[in-house]
Amino acid sequence: MVEERRPQGDASRDHHPHRAGELVLRLAGPDGSPLAEREVEVAQTRHAFGFGSTGFELIPHANGEEDAAALAEDWLGVFDTATLPFYRGDFEPRRGEPRTERIRTAARWFADRGVRLKGHPLVWHTVKAPWMDAMPLDAAWEETLHRIRREVGDFRGLIGSWDVVNEAVIMPVFENEPDGVPNAISRVARAKGRIPLIREAFAAARETDPGATLLLNDFDLSSAYECLIEGLLENGVRIDALGLQTHMHQGYWGEEAMLAMVDRFARYGLPLHLTENTLLSGELMPADIVDLNDYQPESWPSTPEGEARQADELERHYRSLWAHPAVQSITYWGITDAGAWLGAPGGFLRADGSRKPAHDALRSLVRGEWWLSPTRMRTDAEGVIRVSGTLGDYRVVAGGRAAEFAIERPGTDAALAPLTLR
Amino acid sequence: MVEERRPQGDASRDHHPHRAGELVLRLAGPDGSPLAEREVEVAQTRHAFGFGSTGFELIPHANGEEDAAALAEDWLGVFDTATLPFYRGDFEPRRGEPRTERIRTAARWFADRGVRLKGHPLVWHTVKAPWMDAMPLDAAWEETLHRIRREVGDFRGLIGSWDVVNEAVIMPVFENEPDGVPNAISRVARAKGRIPLIREAFAAARETDPGATLLLNDFDLSSAYECLIEGLLENGVRIDALGLQTHMHQGYWGEEAMLAMVDRFARYGLPLHLTENTLLSGELMPADIVDLNDYQPESWPSTPEGEARQADELERHYRSLWAHPAVQSITYWGITDAGAWLGAPGGFLRADGSRKPAHDALRSLVRGEWWLSPTRMRTDAEGVIRVSGTLGDYRVVAGGRAAEFAIERPGTDAALAPLTLR
Repeated sequence: MVEERRPQGDASRDHHPHRAGELVLRLAGPDGSPLAEREVEVAQTRHAFGFGSTGFELIPHANGEEDAAALAEDWLGVFDTATLPFYRGDFEPRRGEPRTERIRTAARWFADRGVRLKGHPLVWHTVKAPWMDAMPLDAAWEETLHRIRREVGDFRGLIGSWDVVNEAVIMPVFENEPDGVPNAISRVARAKGRIPLIREAFAAARETDPGATLLLNDFDLSSAYECLIEGLLENGVRIDALGLQTHMHQGYWGEEAMLAMVDRFARYGLPLHLTENTLLSGELMPADIVDLNDYQPESWPSTPEGEARQADELERHYRSLWAHPAVQSITYWGITDAGAWLGAPGGFLRADGSRKPAHDALRSLVRGEWWLSPTRMRTDAEGVIRVSGTLGDYRVVAGGRAAEFAIERPGTDAALAPLTLR
Repeated sequence: MVEERRPQGDASRDHHPHRAGELVLRLAGPDGSPLAEREVEVAQTRHAFGFGSTGFELIPHANGEEDAAALAEDWLGVFDTATLPFYRGDFEPRRGEPRTERIRTAARWFADRGVRLKGHPLVWHTVKAPWMDAMPLDAAWEETLHRIRREVGDFRGLIGSWDVVNEAVIMPVFENEPDGVPNAISRVARAKGRIPLIREAFAAARETDPGATLLLNDFDLSSAYECLIEGLLENGVRIDALGLQTHMHQGYWGEEAMLAMVDRFARYGLPLHLTENTLLSGELMPADIVDLNDYQPESWPSTPEGEARQADELERHYRSLWAHPAVQSITYWGITDAGAWLGAPGGFLRADGSRKPAHDALRSLVRGEWWLSPTRMRTDAEGVIRVSGTLGDYRVVAGGRAAEFAIERPGTDAALAPLTLR
């Protein structure tokens, strides 16, 4: 039976039932008796939706190499999901000497603050380890599978999701090498084919951490990515979520184009992660640049007009994606202009650390309109309260005791067992 | 074992061993005795390589609807392979009334003249049959499989190869409908996915004519087509040859870019057919046009300078592709400017029927430099001759008797049995 899927994109600001739920809870004291007719305070502690950013900027702080407490506060004020860097050339510049400890310390720092983690990327042709260039292809591929198993194993329990293969569409035909030397990953991809490469990489990650969320991630959102995904799915390669990069250095696409793109990828029935989002608060990159890496002006300032535009576009971008049921997370590509990719003013903080309007704009959605701030409620004679809010984690407090719960599904749900405050 | 393939492209004008062979033949008379010390004449009758064009223009002539003998002579003077039209909307404008007989008459006309035939296309979203628009998708797909079986069956023995699915890369996302009504094929492709659609279409064609050469054909030569092909091959879908369209209304790409593209597709180990080649003898289409159909000026004349350029580029184009071992055929997209696609001056004949320099340029290769014209040879005491030439069909004549043979492989080959002239 051939069934037509309807587009799901809808940029309206109306209530989105797929994002919220109501939970009927019976609260009990430590002795099991109902907390009847009591004042309690309920507050959301985290979104089910991932509001992410790169965590790169806080690695020195987490490792005690510098004090970036203000940056950390601004970061934690809007984000709950961090992407940590595993670029092979940086992570293991000398073969056999991975910088595992420094990244693990950062991962623990985030995890201690309730932040979910993603590792990026395990297989990519860029930021290569030059010591792999001259290896025979078999050995280079073995080294790659080895690093997948090593990293996924070393971070099991800390990092819950991985960009296993990054930019596979261009991988076998990539030639824009900064040093002019063909990288081993592209040569392996060309020789093996994309699908066997992805299948083996995912298998290595899956067997090392069967509980991890494994992503394919790409910036090429054309039919090429569709064709690759269709080939993988028809081959039975299990992909847990599709990563869609939307660096918008050349300008915001607008809700309509963005949702049309999201609809094209939503038709595979997989969760979508908008993995790399950038909106500039300065001049836009010229439209004729194809590889964004080819444009890196000496100075690229953030401007007042640019910052107003960025805040406006940011809100529209997040609202439109929040409205689409297939989107599970949005990861912004860097909170600060200091050290930003390409030197572009895409952060929510200026290079001097001060906040741009974009920070407030996002905060007012993520910790405002879409968030249940601490709210007083009163239980009934059976200790029952009804909590409505966006899907995510919550905490209820009464008289010095507390309990955690989650609103996991849209619609109204009743918790089966009483929730005991301790 | 991961093995690297080397690029095979080579645009040099040197001898290309993959295109030629030598056959050692022992000639015998009807009684089996050797034709010793005899003068014979050997001549090539057809290339193994397909030098093709559309056969559309000769359908009225073949059906006796008009006299186009001069056009036919010019066509047969350079081509040996014809593409015949099976566009659903034209072929079956009213459901159940296919124009089989008219096309079959044309197919027989070509076949009687030693011309190989290809049918184009069996599944495509353009030139749709509007009566399919409103059908439920299941029914539209059944209708499509039915037409595949019907056409492949009706032309079995006449048409040896088929563009089974045309432009699958864009198929599910195609929206540039001339009448604004979404076509059924794109909707089926979107709902089923490209790979199941192609698998089922090829299976229907294959089971109807197991001996036919079945092609996938596309104009999108980006990584998208690579990804689609890799998905199909990994899924075990057998494709006999890959069709690559190279309409060059916006200018000749040059040997280097062309061979780099051919190399990308040659790595799948499948024969390549350059299925739709156009080089203009007039002004070029502006480079910013994306869908070529969007540019159709009122008048688009062939010019003397344009004709000189076209002839030069045509020779370079054919020479470079002839040099690449994976290329098995080149089909030019229309011999005459009269009624050409988009009204573009891409033919070898002007609209008034006179020949442009391109016709001579191609003829001097195909029936000149790469061709064994009638050549006198002398057999030795055992009746042996050695014939060297490009791969293809040949004829030997002596004293009113004749026999056919073929040079099928590169290198030197010896025919096992004597060749009997009758």
